[in-house]
Amino acid sequence: MKPIQFRHLVRAGEFRKPTAGVCGGYAQANLVILPAAQAHDFLRFAQRNPKACPLLAVGEPGAWNVPALGADLDLRTDVPGYYVYRDGQLAETPASLEGLWRDDLVAFAIGCSFSFEEMLLAAGIPLRHIEQDRNIAMYRTNIPNEAAGAFGGNMVVSMRPLKARDAIRAIQITSRFPAIHGAPVHLGDPRLIGIADLARPDYGDAVEVMADEVPVFWACGVTPQEAIRAAHLPFVITHRPGYMLVTDIPNAALAAL
Amino acid sequence: MKPIQFRHLVRAGEFRKPTAGVCGGYAQANLVILPAAQAHDFLRFAQRNPKACPLLAVGEPGAWNVPALGADLDLRTDVPGYYVYRDGQLAETPASLEGLWRDDLVAFAIGCSFSFEEMLLAAGIPLRHIEQDRNIAMYRTNIPNEAAGAFGGNMVVSMRPLKARDAIRAIQITSRFPAIHGAPVHLGDPRLIGIADLARPDYGDAVEVMADEVPVFWACGVTPQEAIRAAHLPFVITHRPGYMLVTDIPNAALAAL
Repeated sequence: MKPIQFRHLVRAGEFRKPTAGVCGGYAQANLVILPAAQAHDFLRFAQRNPKACPLLAVGEPGAWNVPALGADLDLRTDVPGYYVYRDGQLAETPASLEGLWRDDLVAFAIGCSFSFEEMLLAAGIPLRHIEQDRNIAMYRTNIPNEAAGAFGGNMVVSMRPLKARDAIRAIQITSRFPAIHGAPVHLGDPRLIGIADLARPDYGDAVEVMADEVPVFWACGVTPQEAIRAAHLPFVITHRPGYMLVTDIPNAALAAL
Repeated sequence: MKPIQFRHLVRAGEFRKPTAGVCGGYAQANLVILPAAQAHDFLRFAQRNPKACPLLAVGEPGAWNVPALGADLDLRTDVPGYYVYRDGQLAETPASLEGLWRDDLVAFAIGCSFSFEEMLLAAGIPLRHIEQDRNIAMYRTNIPNEAAGAFGGNMVVSMRPLKARDAIRAIQITSRFPAIHGAPVHLGDPRLIGIADLARPDYGDAVEVMADEVPVFWACGVTPQEAIRAAHLPFVITHRPGYMLVTDIPNAALAAL
């Protein structure tokens, strides 16, 4: 199925599930929708923290279509699940944004590690959380984000245990894709970035790190979500975690070289 | 000083020391000179083990000048020290090859980690053995080479302790330079590649690995030297370790991308 067909399926209310594995080969995106009053601060936050918050596209103020992301795309209806936060609290989990859209909303599409995982699997690098059908393990770190306006906090990372030669290859592969978190930010001892116990992730599911493996840590799209929650904004919309926007952008087109 | 001026100095007998730090910005090369009878096997060995044995150039049979390496270059006189092996044993350490050159000799110039260390230092990555003015620590591993003819054995690696973020950057930088050993072959636990104790290198000097560092291992040009010694050939010439051939090739020109 092509991304446009998938989005039409979502729009028709016929797909309300996580999007992992959907439309292989095309980039999926995290979605953040903010009022214009906070949008410029958030844009500076993303610019200053590109590994955690790599922008695939930013919409025009008020625009629910973003041509850079796909043809005939409607951000109000084409994502299989939304979270609406009011005054910093999760307030609604609507299936569409009809009735919620406002003329001052600005949409941000943020690159997603689903894309680089596809590149790693294509290179023959096994990923344990996929083999074991678990969610990726994510951890809060002590690596501070560069703040902008109300947005700050620390980086959240995802962790993949890899054999050393696969870790080296994964660094090469993901370095080519700055728009989907790029190269890892850390490898080896998790305590050096403030993670006390790999068996207790802050989000997602723990996976075992074998004796011949190195834990490798990438900046994670949960970082901006945490920064947004901590900012206690009056009104924010995001995708429901795991229920991503499927774009027309081929993952391969995101390679910087 | 330009490389050609340095080579003329060596040729005049006015430089008989290690070449570390000489002619910054230009590639230095390991030298292997073999009779034609063994040269084809060695060329296949190098082709099969490009990380340990990256070829900058191979001379014509009998040729002591190799235009790809530099102008007005004479391999018989332009290296500050030579080792001559006979029947697998170090037999002579002449200052020039005059009187030793033969019409059937084939010269191999092999990339050297001096070049990529310059790139790492330029990127602000500290290298402990340079800070402490020691020789790089080198270790025999249990990683088998792909054999060709009499040439086989295991890979020898050099080790540099790096902070994780510098290790990631060093992988990116050295990946661009396949002609000078390329990306690391291992990082982390040395026992996984058959190294029992980092404090006891097989060649060079040990350096400390700090608690916040990862040992990073690159394939090393000592690998072909060990393979050549183990092959017990009747006649081989190499450079004296540390006394390299200084070429006209800018290090930056060795970047694959």
